[in-house]
Amino acid sequence: MVGTSVRVGVLGAGGRMGAEVCDAVDAAPDLTLVARVDIDDSLSDLVDAGADVVVDFTHPDVVMDNLRFCVEHDLRAVVGTSGFAPERLETVRGWLSAKPSLGVLIVPNFALGAVLSMKFAQLAARFYPSAEIIELHHAGKADAPSGTAAHTASLIAAARAEAGLDKAPDATTSALEGARGALVDDVRVHSVRLAGLVAHQEVLFGGEGETLTIRHDSLDRKSFMPGVLLGVREVMGRQGLTVGLENVLSL
Amino acid sequence: MVGTSVRVGVLGAGGRMGAEVCDAVDAAPDLTLVARVDIDDSLSDLVDAGADVVVDFTHPDVVMDNLRFCVEHDLRAVVGTSGFAPERLETVRGWLSAKPSLGVLIVPNFALGAVLSMKFAQLAARFYPSAEIIELHHAGKADAPSGTAAHTASLIAAARAEAGLDKAPDATTSALEGARGALVDDVRVHSVRLAGLVAHQEVLFGGEGETLTIRHDSLDRKSFMPGVLLGVREVMGRQGLTVGLENVLSL
Amino acid sequence: MVGTSVRVGVLGAGGRMGAEVCDAVDAAPDLTLVARVDIDDSLSDLVDAGADVVVDFTHPDVVMDNLRFCVEHDLRAVVGTSGFAPERLETVRGWLSAKPSLGVLIVPNFALGAVLSMKFAQLAARFYPSAEIIELHHAGKADAPSGTAAHTASLIAAARAEAGLDKAPDATTSALEGARGALVDDVRVHSVRLAGLVAHQEVLFGGEGETLTIRHDSLDRKSFMPGVLLGVREVMGRQGLTVGLENVLSL
Amino acid sequence: MVGTSVRVGVLGAGGRMGAEVCDAVDAAPDLTLVARVDIDDSLSDLVDAGADVVVDFTHPDVVMDNLRFCVEHDLRAVVGTSGFAPERLETVRGWLSAKPSLGVLIVPNFALGAVLSMKFAQLAARFYPSAEIIELHHAGKADAPSGTAAHTASLIAAARAEAGLDKAPDATTSALEGARGALVDDVRVHSVRLAGLVAHQEVLFGGEGETLTIRHDSLDRKSFMPGVLLGVREVMGRQGLTVGLENVLSL
Repeated sequence: MVGTSVRVGVLGAGGRMGAEVCDAVDAAPDLTLVARVDIDDSLSDLVDAGADVVVDFTHPDVVMDNLRFCVEHDLRAVVGTSGFAPERLETVRGWLSAKPSLGVLIVPNFALGAVLSMKFAQLAARFYPSAEIIELHHAGKADAPSGTAAHTASLIAAARAEAGLDKAPDATTSALEGARGALVDDVRVHSVRLAGLVAHQEVLFGGEGETLTIRHDSLDRKSFMPGVLLGVREVMGRQGLTVGLENVLSL
Repeated sequence: MVGTSVRVGVLGAGGRMGAEVCDAVDAAPDLTLVARVDIDDSLSDLVDAGADVVVDFTHPDVVMDNLRFCVEHDLRAVVGTSGFAPERLETVRGWLSAKPSLGVLIVPNFALGAVLSMKFAQLAARFYPSAEIIELHHAGKADAPSGTAAHTASLIAAARAEAGLDKAPDATTSALEGARGALVDDVRVHSVRLAGLVAHQEVLFGGEGETLTIRHDSLDRKSFMPGVLLGVREVMGRQGLTVGLENVLSL
Repeated sequence: MVGTSVRVGVLGAGGRMGAEVCDAVDAAPDLTLVARVDIDDSLSDLVDAGADVVVDFTHPDVVMDNLRFCVEHDLRAVVGTSGFAPERLETVRGWLSAKPSLGVLIVPNFALGAVLSMKFAQLAARFYPSAEIIELHHAGKADAPSGTAAHTASLIAAARAEAGLDKAPDATTSALEGARGALVDDVRVHSVRLAGLVAHQEVLFGGEGETLTIRHDSLDRKSFMPGVLLGVREVMGRQGLTVGLENVLSL
Repeated sequence: MVGTSVRVGVLGAGGRMGAEVCDAVDAAPDLTLVARVDIDDSLSDLVDAGADVVVDFTHPDVVMDNLRFCVEHDLRAVVGTSGFAPERLETVRGWLSAKPSLGVLIVPNFALGAVLSMKFAQLAARFYPSAEIIELHHAGKADAPSGTAAHTASLIAAARAEAGLDKAPDATTSALEGARGALVDDVRVHSVRLAGLVAHQEVLFGGEGETLTIRHDSLDRKSFMPGVLLGVREVMGRQGLTVGLENVLSL
């Protein structure tokens, strides 16, 4: 594939995720790492290096400036930085309306397994009267439930509502406070925090005489790299703003 | 929904599965059980009762006669009886060509969880370098691996081939005979047989730093009933032959 | 083993558990079922039949009268009926003080797997900074957490205290209500209720770089029978009151 | 506890495990790291530093010389180096017979979870007609099954034999080659190799209506450190040769 290698610049190249991205791009035969840009470097390095795509793992405080620069200079972007509330997405859409051929991909979770889990949960939800989520993380995590679990619960709740399902059956009449977990859009979510764990999630569906469980175990931030590379390849053929890796997986 | 209830006749109503179907149809508000037909009864009872759909859980020796009768008398059919090799399917297609508005649904596995597991395995396969299957059954099972596990392995292998994946990585150089399981189309399948189990399957996918597991637990033949009822409802709006519940789930 | 078969009478023989016990005793080569006594029969049938051991699965309202009768008539007893608060146990000990050679065994949970789970949890607890419990039951269960889970949590807490362990690490600063489960003696317990499940429990321990999980799945009340038969055999060689199957397992 | 800190020397301090041990000893309030000895250093550094206990993570080729030196110089030893066949153990016992107050601890597996898993498997084995093992490792592992799985299978087989159990029930009459796993002392062992995994093991027991599963997940070599520190503390109060962490856990 002489001449077809995608030229990739990395923003936040000195951070932990950014460094992993540099390594992963370097190791991919169809991609070329052309710029490592960190906090003290100039964004124009990306243009000088002739990047086709910019991967951004920086900080919510600077990511909007980065993105505006990319759009202005006709650089496609794959963004892993967090903090994209709906208003920010609207702003990005506004910038892109002036550049109809340019693609930007914003991804809250690059782990393929997490994305597939959510997709499968969404597909399975309407077939089962019962659905609950158990998410299990290391003891150093600050929030409960995890963002992924809460998002999965919302997707399940929406699928159940669309299918006209009643509330999940539950005969509990006497419970210790907290035993039945947290309610996220009417779906129960249980958060386990344990030394020795990393990041894990089980979505459980149950019906007459059977259960279906979708479990994702993430042990290493390297697990995000296949999703990042997939995003880089996919954004080359897309126009406008895409949010979520699930929307480029063509499932 | 006055007047719109689907009228259901059950063939093999005296068998264990047939009896479960009768109970399930009876309990469904949108279906009416109009005929219970067993080995000593006449097929014409189905016509006399004004059945819209016939559910067949009989025996491979009689199911083709039953199906021909149904097609001749404009009865839709949902078939759970096993033994449908490709030639039999061809024969049924032939009968149906003369009745373009009639639908027949033949289903090797009515468990929604098994069908969803297979579908999800098929969707996930191309994203992971590694895939193996563990199926776990009661100690009285005669064959290993299970038919569902072998079929799942074939689906995974086909999806991997289509995506151009290499063989799964495996550095094993010294192994006890059988330790690495059976190979079904290049996918490893492990069969556990244990007192106390019923029917369970885990499909494991693994990539850099993460794994994805799809587990199905089937504890009771009641677990087939939601799939049977779904089939009955779906066959009302279909023409021609459909094979496999996955093809009516609109996933 | 001519002449050495243990003669067993069953109280509550007409109930679901009692009927299972009758079947299990009948099937055991070293035991003989000599009396099936139910609500309308006389307790003296047990004496007339020459029972060595009486198994009681009746009701909290009558079990004390049954037990007093057994002790008075030199019948050993294995009791599965619930409702034994400490005062009742004291009363039974009082009766037995007059019969030093007689043994009575009262068992809150006959499932070997549940008893072993609790024992193993107790043994493992002092080696791990983190411990949590997930119990999963059918959607018809009224209380949360289950009695077994609460009891397991107490055993773990006691073992941790004895080993001088600090509280389990937990950096949670922002949590939805209920997400982190219920606290039983400082151990987190999560209760899942799902159609399709029966009775299941996972005890999770975590430390630096590793986790240990003890899982028990109970699918059928037949699972209590090996524990009942073990109790019958063991009570033949015991004096006084023993509470809990764990105390006859010689682990 | 002024003055009571145990003085620890580490042999193989420059290796990956040795370096972890140095860090762990350094971090333990009741232990003092007094010597880091590697391949180019002199063993007499251990004596000069006044070590109470020597931890050896070196190589099978040199460990016997190291151990002889320790015994001659009245240094207690905790050994994680592999390669201790029965003859080597006999040799060490011979050396120790001349030093009755000295203790040496040789440990094939320092992971507490692995040791507890084996112990619990041994305890549970006699209560269940069925037992199988699934071990799951990263795709780079050369042998199948793992040493721990094979050892666990042997322990289960011995416990079954002692309890007089029959062979596990298995109605398999038609199986693909390898489907039913490898036989280790009549216990079936299944070896999964998957990218994304580290080191995991499930021991499954099954009986009438229930199953018991003991699962160990090891994600990091840090998981060996609590076992190493426990060994250091325990060897201070022991005489003679002890083999296996399970023999110092006082379970």
